Amino acid sequence: MPDHAISPTRAEDYPEWYQQVVKAADLAEQSPVRGCMVIKPNGYAVWERMQAILDRMFKDTGHQNAYFPLFIPLSYLEKEAQHVEGFAKECAVVTHHRLELSPEGKLVPTGKLEEPLIVRPTSETIIGAMFARWIQSWRDLPLLINQWANVVRWEMRPRLFLRTTEFLWQEGHTAHATREEAVEETLRMLDVYATFAERDLAMPVIRGPKPAAERFPGAVDTFSIEAMMQDGKALQAGTSHFLGQNFARAQEMKFASQSGTEEYCWTTSWGVSTRLIGAVIMTHADDDGLVLPPRIAPTQVVLLPIHRTPEEKESVLACCRSLEAELAAARFGGEPIRARTDTREIRGGDKTWQYIKQGVPLRVEIGPRDLAAGSVSLTRRDRPPKERTSLPIARFAAEAPRLLEEIQQGLFDRARAFRDRRSVRLASLDAVREFFSSGDASQDGVTAGGGFAHVHVADDPAVAAALDPLKITVRCIPMEGPDEPGRCVVTGQEVARPSVLAKSY
Amino acid sequence: MPDHAISPTRAEDYPEWYQQVVKAADLAEQSPVRGCMVIKPNGYAVWERMQAILDRMFKDTGHQNAYFPLFIPLSYLEKEAQHVEGFAKECAVVTHHRLELSPEGKLVPTGKLEEPLIVRPTSETIIGAMFARWIQSWRDLPLLINQWANVVRWEMRPRLFLRTTEFLWQEGHTAHATREEAVEETLRMLDVYATFAERDLAMPVIRGPKPAAERFPGAVDTFSIEAMMQDGKALQAGTSHFLGQNFARAQEMKFASQSGTEEYCWTTSWGVSTRLIGAVIMTHADDDGLVLPPRIAPTQVVLLPIHRTPEEKESVLACCRSLEAELAAARFGGEPIRARTDTREIRGGDKTWQYIKQGVPLRVEIGPRDLAAGSVSLTRRDRPPKERTSLPIARFAAEAPRLLEEIQQGLFDRARAFRDRRSVRLASLDAVREFFSSGDASQDGVTAGGGFAHVHVADDPAVAAALDPLKITVRCIPMEGPDEPGRCVVTGQEVARPSVLAKSY
Repeated sequence: MPDHAISPTRAEDYPEWYQQVVKAADLAEQSPVRGCMVIKPNGYAVWERMQAILDRMFKDTGHQNAYFPLFIPLSYLEKEAQHVEGFAKECAVVTHHRLELSPEGKLVPTGKLEEPLIVRPTSETIIGAMFARWIQSWRDLPLLINQWANVVRWEMRPRLFLRTTEFLWQEGHTAHATREEAVEETLRMLDVYATFAERDLAMPVIRGPKPAAERFPGAVDTFSIEAMMQDGKALQAGTSHFLGQNFARAQEMKFASQSGTEEYCWTTSWGVSTRLIGAVIMTHADDDGLVLPPRIAPTQVVLLPIHRTPEEKESVLACCRSLEAELAAARFGGEPIRARTDTREIRGGDKTWQYIKQGVPLRVEIGPRDLAAGSVSLTRRDRPPKERTSLPIARFAAEAPRLLEEIQQGLFDRARAFRDRRSVRLASLDAVREFFSSGDASQDGVTAGGGFAHVHVADDPAVAAALDPLKITVRCIPMEGPDEPGRCVVTGQEVARPSVLAKSY
Repeated sequence: MPDHAISPTRAEDYPEWYQQVVKAADLAEQSPVRGCMVIKPNGYAVWERMQAILDRMFKDTGHQNAYFPLFIPLSYLEKEAQHVEGFAKECAVVTHHRLELSPEGKLVPTGKLEEPLIVRPTSETIIGAMFARWIQSWRDLPLLINQWANVVRWEMRPRLFLRTTEFLWQEGHTAHATREEAVEETLRMLDVYATFAERDLAMPVIRGPKPAAERFPGAVDTFSIEAMMQDGKALQAGTSHFLGQNFARAQEMKFASQSGTEEYCWTTSWGVSTRLIGAVIMTHADDDGLVLPPRIAPTQVVLLPIHRTPEEKESVLACCRSLEAELAAARFGGEPIRARTDTREIRGGDKTWQYIKQGVPLRVEIGPRDLAAGSVSLTRRDRPPKERTSLPIARFAAEAPRLLEEIQQGLFDRARAFRDRRSVRLASLDAVREFFSSGDASQDGVTAGGGFAHVHVADDPAVAAALDPLKITVRCIPMEGPDEPGRCVVTGQEVARPSVLAKSY
């Protein structure tokens, strides 16, 4: 057995470590379809947990789910000029609607479409067209819709979860009578994402508007939540867009106002995707594999029975069953605790390492000696694999919520401390250059990719031009705290707040 | 106000009545994308209920969810000859992966793919390719996977929910070590569908194998559940396929058996889709609109406050809120009762008719007079709109589960009685001809399309040829009850059981 279950380690080769964690936890794999992944049961179960929590949050903020077509007529995409420009290079295009045997006996596409259809890369244009039909007066507003769907953006250099040609996501689309309401909605959903990231994914995020060059194509303002991965790079984990009246104009989405005038709607859109699974891996996983925050762990407690004789088996399994029932009756995050017993007859060590690699928060071993002592042997995924504690059986189910909460909070605190250690405030372009070029030194046991540099920069093409050779971008302008005016390190312009600069996924 | 909320009525024009029910209940509408519908919030909420129940049933029978690519390489589809033949005429084909501005300033597809990709019409081939990678030995079997996804089958004559180019569904795919196990799985999932249809959708179904001509392309055996719509036509509401080793051979899906030999797997697939929403409409809706079985009704009880003065409003709304809480604490079908209060300030009659058209099972009016009398005024969607009963407020939440159960069971009983009245046993082709040609007479207040004829027929092309001019097909060979041998009314061959013949959707 090597020192660690995952080889290479983070320090040795971070990108390859990521692939190996995905494999060891059996989350996903590349499919034979270029750029498309298969999300395996372990990975999909995490997505289901994310969906359940987010769906509840969307409904609690007044949104309803609906479903819109996969295909978008080319002419719809063209209506918003910046929008089509932004997506033209990555569109899967449907041009035919049947297959026919050619005279050479080969199946060939036939039934050419008069107008090509685009497999949705996002749905502003088709949903906007429907909204335009549905909205007549101010009484129809706000219209608050969410869709769970697959989308396609052709990807030349795919990476599991992080960049795939097809991915799963949700896209919220809303229409409002006033600019103020639409801005409020944009920020409300940014907050929903930030709360979800921090509370449920235990992933600290920075929220803020993006510079113009990084905006969603067609948006007036794009806000994102940015998280720091363990190589110091930023990952954009969710975005919320204020679309102004751009799409409403392109789609003739108008309403009769209370004063009787005809006006264009103000719209928003916002989304998170299966990319979040990649974010969770790169935030919490370690050199032994995945580490799942309890709130999104499909299995929160795994019970591992140990027995040799049939009599031992019977009493140990009876204990497991009763613990399962007690845990199902206990509550963590408002829900029954998800426990399961692994009764497979394979080597105990293999089982244990499997759950370590899969990131299950709590492992509980129960054998005849434990039963005799009236205790269970407990190991936590956020502690070294061999650090055991013992707990009275009778108290375990009552203690489990606290243990899970401790792990959840501990993961968040650890990730935030990591981010804080790798965050700096810099006052010159030279300092920025130095910070990101010295970033290859190993630190915190992982390959470094720099970190977050908080720097005053203007929203100006000159800034992007200066940062481009460093392979860094302006991630967002953090919104928290009071203004801290300063001069742009590139242009010298006065700006109100520092931005976060980083390498990114 | 006309006699009925829906015009035309079922008797006047059944197909148009269907469209009007969908519209009145605000379930879905045609999108600007040919053949693709938009599922509106009211329709999608019903689908979410169906998904939640089915997903639980799949997991309880040992299946795990996963997700596979939307695109299938043409060469994969070709591997199973019958399969590709079955779907070739309705495939959306992706041929390019980007758009570019032509010299004439027009956006045109570019980046031609070496191999065209098919938007999945079903996923046997791509899932099978992954199974072949995952399965090495008998220890890896059975492999029990389900996918919730969208699929595309190009449709020239779309009808909302019933036939659309894109639809939402689930597709189960399983692999087994033996023929027996795979057959058992095929029938288990057929039973899951039948239980779901009868218990949750209150829709009686007949289950049985299909004749060869009606099998899923590539299957050894296809079993279906068939329901009777109110025009007497059959609707195939779910299918479960025993695929033998056909797909395993096409995809080299092999395993090392316990005795060490290399063998092909035995596979199954099974699915239901958003078509079920159409089935529910055509089974239960009436001339006033949708009628939802309580178990799948997103809102089971709507509370309609009535008040004039601010004081009345306050006390009435307080009563509504406390009833909502009591109902959420009550249980129906193992879940909290889903109630909501409609506080919109619009005419009471408009509200009432809206919920009648949307099919909400129980409507409860609460006004100052009711409060004074300590009672609520109750109307049920399965009874005439004006048939009111009164119940003590204090008892309502306790009575609600029984009322909902009564409606659920009543809808099932009514649908089964309808089906039984429209079912006949016939012993000659002439009798069949007469039954289906006299089927245009109005009966039961709805346009007639015949009904179900139980007839002995052989699984023989001659039978299909004889039935084709009558526009009827063999739906399935019902499995329930003992064998009842007889002679085929077309070929004279001895067959073990009668089949169900019907017009169909």
